[in-house]
Amino acid sequence: MALKGKMVIGQSGGPTAVINQSLVGAVLEARKHPEITGILGAHHGIAGIMAEDFIDLTTQSDAQLELVANTPAAALGSVRLKPGKAECERVFEVFKKNDVRYFFYIGGNDSAETAHIIAEMAKEEHYDFCTVHLPKTIDNDLRVTDHCPGFASAARFVALAFMGDDRDNAALAGIKINVVMGRHAGFLTAASALARQDEGDGPHLIYLPERAFNVASFQADVKRMMVNYGRCVVAVSEGVADADGNPIASTGEKDSHGNVQLSGTGALGDFLSTRVKEAYAGETVRVRADTFGYLQRSYPTIVSEVDAREARESGGFGVSHAVHSGENGSIAIRRLSSAPYQSDYFVTPLSTVAREATEMKDEYIHADGNDVTEAWLEYLRPLVGELPRMGKLF
Amino acid sequence: MALKGKMVIGQSGGPTAVINQSLVGAVLEARKHPEITGILGAHHGIAGIMAEDFIDLTTQSDAQLELVANTPAAALGSVRLKPGKAECERVFEVFKKNDVRYFFYIGGNDSAETAHIIAEMAKEEHYDFCTVHLPKTIDNDLRVTDHCPGFASAARFVALAFMGDDRDNAALAGIKINVVMGRHAGFLTAASALARQDEGDGPHLIYLPERAFNVASFQADVKRMMVNYGRCVVAVSEGVADADGNPIASTGEKDSHGNVQLSGTGALGDFLSTRVKEAYAGETVRVRADTFGYLQRSYPTIVSEVDAREARESGGFGVSHAVHSGENGSIAIRRLSSAPYQSDYFVTPLSTVAREATEMKDEYIHADGNDVTEAWLEYLRPLVGELPRMGKLF
Repeated sequence: MALKGKMVIGQSGGPTAVINQSLVGAVLEARKHPEITGILGAHHGIAGIMAEDFIDLTTQSDAQLELVANTPAAALGSVRLKPGKAECERVFEVFKKNDVRYFFYIGGNDSAETAHIIAEMAKEEHYDFCTVHLPKTIDNDLRVTDHCPGFASAARFVALAFMGDDRDNAALAGIKINVVMGRHAGFLTAASALARQDEGDGPHLIYLPERAFNVASFQADVKRMMVNYGRCVVAVSEGVADADGNPIASTGEKDSHGNVQLSGTGALGDFLSTRVKEAYAGETVRVRADTFGYLQRSYPTIVSEVDAREARESGGFGVSHAVHSGENGSIAIRRLSSAPYQSDYFVTPLSTVAREATEMKDEYIHADGNDVTEAWLEYLRPLVGELPRMGKLF
Repeated sequence: MALKGKMVIGQSGGPTAVINQSLVGAVLEARKHPEITGILGAHHGIAGIMAEDFIDLTTQSDAQLELVANTPAAALGSVRLKPGKAECERVFEVFKKNDVRYFFYIGGNDSAETAHIIAEMAKEEHYDFCTVHLPKTIDNDLRVTDHCPGFASAARFVALAFMGDDRDNAALAGIKINVVMGRHAGFLTAASALARQDEGDGPHLIYLPERAFNVASFQADVKRMMVNYGRCVVAVSEGVADADGNPIASTGEKDSHGNVQLSGTGALGDFLSTRVKEAYAGETVRVRADTFGYLQRSYPTIVSEVDAREARESGGFGVSHAVHSGENGSIAIRRLSSAPYQSDYFVTPLSTVAREATEMKDEYIHADGNDVTEAWLEYLRPLVGELPRMGKLF
């Protein structure tokens, strides 16, 4: 028999363009189930639960929810907080007080770990309770799932950005370095390759955190592309590190998960610009760097249709699974076919996605370590959807 | 009687999302006039003319031209080159050799100056010749015209960027500084204000190059907004300077027009982040800076409909004017009405737009110097077009 009680839903970690689709998918599904006696949205995830800072999502109009679903970032507010024992005890105090029997947490691997900790604590306390993690990350670095809701929309933003920027670079030739989000995994940086439509189109070089970054090789690569094409567009992950794992450039500041701050600064782009200028010592060369920054995860209207649909459906699937089985887990996507693209959803134990993240497979990375492979593009294309054709007069 | 001969068309200065609309508008209009015996596109503007590096635009298919019109950046290639006497002589050598009687140059005030120099030289040489400048700049800083083709699409990009980024900042509260393009004029930075839909929405502060930037006032402004809203989104022009006109932060590098390099570096954003952290010495505060960079002028698919149409029509109007009158000039836009939005085109002497640029009127800038006025929003709204509504749950 299904658990009966209220549900709490929260959002955690970095926002995405479609995290609110998952929220709305879960809420709309929950409304179909009488076992769920109330739908509480927690402001700022775990922090909001501890503060009993909830919004009642039981009665929001469909029109309002649709507006929210199509709005980027986390409508409930997000948080970066890994709860310890004391925090968990407070969470359960609130859950018991409010007769909460379901907890849905939308986030990445850190959020899955939070969900896992909560689930384990419920078992210890013999509290009849179901925790489901709903996947979300532009980094695409969750284990088990074929890909993560949020990634394809960010990938679409990056692909379009490189398409336009490559035309800009063709118009005013020079060396252009674009720094892309992705702390440990190069998926989003690798999405830049979708910008290529004709021979000679950029990005001409792609550097991923999965491979050690060597400044001298980078300088040589750029000079070779300048000889070949008279210009060079570079995609580089914010997370590139040297052979010892040290970030190439960073402010040294850490976030509350203990991760070094990479986004929200132009340090890496400016560092690489300077290295390129050094490589051309004495010669005049036009070098520019842009750091795409938060636009990649929160730009309105640039959304992959597949991503929006899967984010919505995975939220609904998670709630349906919880009500029908009462089992903890994380929702994952299985790719059934790439052409035509088809997928479905399944449940994987929280422990299989919590904490540890994954990275790009070797088969997706060019042997030279400065580009991607055709296998990568085959994986990515159906997720991002059709892109506009760039018109050229050269 | 109309001049008979070939036309040369070129693009100059920084690319925009709709500069190719002006190109295509001019080409399609030119094809209607038997007086124009050939349409030569100059690769990289004046540089291409000197090198006789032309593409024949007489016979391109309409489908190909439409693809080009909807592609950002400059399809012919662009250039930043102010020709001196020797360059002008070479240009006329090429024009005479190829029986060129019309010259259309799409660009900003530097490009208008080039057109003006060429036109003056033709007079001196008694060469029957017509030069028309077609306006283009995301900076919106051309004199005479109500606004410049290219601006509204960049403004739309910036407004959407701030809408999404403000939701991101609401989800994970802190201080977010976004650096927007615009060397001397704050129009594009001021477009960020369109992101506001409800009380408390960012940007909470807007700094324009039209007002001296004072670091201590900036720090105090940010702290006040943090007290009011618990978060703060800042729009700041890349061109902000202190009371003596010195840029707040720059690499010191200059482009070929002698302008200090402001874009393509994260220096200003990082500088301002550091100043904010200093203002909160000892306290933990989340500060991030993004520099929107070249995406503002070349991001595909983010286009204002009014802007695309006016860019196209101003190109056609320029050619029609040249054939019918043979008079040199620059095309400008006159606003006939804001609601409903209506405009038409007229011709202004090259000297009135060449060299000197303009900036935001005082009535558009808040008396405190850290925001815009309602009059500014009334001017801007019809140009940018409808924006999506952000859904909220707070």
